[in-house]
Amino acid sequence: MDSDSVKALVFDTFGTVVDWRTSVSRDLAAFGARKGIQADWLAFADAWRAGYKPGMDTVRSGQRPWANIDVLPGLRRLKQRYIISTFSNGSVPCLVNMAKHAGLPWDAIYSADIVRHFKPDPEVYLGVIGFFDLPPEQLMLVAAHNGDLRHARSHGMRTAYIQRPTEYGPAQSKDLGAEDDWDVIVPGIDRLADVLLGSQLPFRRR
Amino acid sequence: MDSDSVKALVFDTFGTVVDWRTSVSRDLAAFGARKGIQADWLAFADAWRAGYKPGMDTVRSGQRPWANIDVLPGLRRLKQRYIISTFSNGSVPCLVNMAKHAGLPWDAIYSADIVRHFKPDPEVYLGVIGFFDLPPEQLMLVAAHNGDLRHARSHGMRTAYIQRPTEYGPAQSKDLGAEDDWDVIVPGIDRLADVLLGSQLPFRRR
Repeated sequence: MDSDSVKALVFDTFGTVVDWRTSVSRDLAAFGARKGIQADWLAFADAWRAGYKPGMDTVRSGQRPWANIDVLPGLRRLKQRYIISTFSNGSVPCLVNMAKHAGLPWDAIYSADIVRHFKPDPEVYLGVIGFFDLPPEQLMLVAAHNGDLRHARSHGMRTAYIQRPTEYGPAQSKDLGAEDDWDVIVPGIDRLADVLLGSQLPFRRR
Repeated sequence: MDSDSVKALVFDTFGTVVDWRTSVSRDLAAFGARKGIQADWLAFADAWRAGYKPGMDTVRSGQRPWANIDVLPGLRRLKQRYIISTFSNGSVPCLVNMAKHAGLPWDAIYSADIVRHFKPDPEVYLGVIGFFDLPPEQLMLVAAHNGDLRHARSHGMRTAYIQRPTEYGPAQSKDLGAEDDWDVIVPGIDRLADVLLGSQLPFRRR
């Protein structure tokens, strides 16, 4: 893969860009402290996430995600050369508010909302290709989830795997590593910028 | 109107945010100079625009818009308090590329593309209300075009009129001024920020 041939990077958001587990449990712990409630807030966050499907709309008001410092410089650098966009089952208002709170500098918000389907329905992947009106090979999905990347590749998109082996905590049982020869495999978004912007070689070629 | 009750500002883009006439004719003049072609490039830009309906897709590659310094500080200030978004018949790629080139700091790109209708079809106005999942009175359309604002108001949205009496050049024959009691009437986006952010009073109340 030639990184010049990619024009837009679309990012799975929850788990790939923002650490929902730590931030949600931290906010819940602060809430508990104010109200005098003791609980295992990480377990609470896990239970909350387990009840999360198929949409994220119902939890919008409880959301206050966090982006670590590696994510922000990575996105800012990638934005200099590529269109950067969300690619999420989260609702448009959720993604917009998250971006405003965390300072995520997206060029566009693309959500499953727009096509009224959820990942991994093909409409979501075909929809983003139509949204940006680019050949699929000029779009790269950035995600911490092998399944998401598998679907993106099946529609002709490029793929970048971000290693997040503890997105779901220390007991996470899937997405512990890359399960295929994704175009790029990196431990974080800052490293994705290193690879795509050429300050670190090599990356995998297809 | 209470400016606290507004949550999102959606901007008509061509003519309201960017001066397509000056920038297109300037780029054409530069092209002509390189190629040794003499022409009335303002007239050419007018003719180009006259052939522009119903979509903007076909001219995407020729687009290189310009935002003046009043627009950029205005948008940056408004973004601190409001969601700011395009609301345009321009295509998503056109709007994204324009934002990247001109540094327009949109929180989201909303285009007629998303609902596959063009303004002033009701689907475009109802679509933006659904896109942001806000009550219509929490959305304000910012536009230099009375007709656009009339439709927005008919769907319950707030309205801000930006005076652009020479968008189409000195011979412009419509949209020379506000034709209704829009919620805000200002000569530019920087002044819109003054009014909505409270540093300049009063604005019109409904």
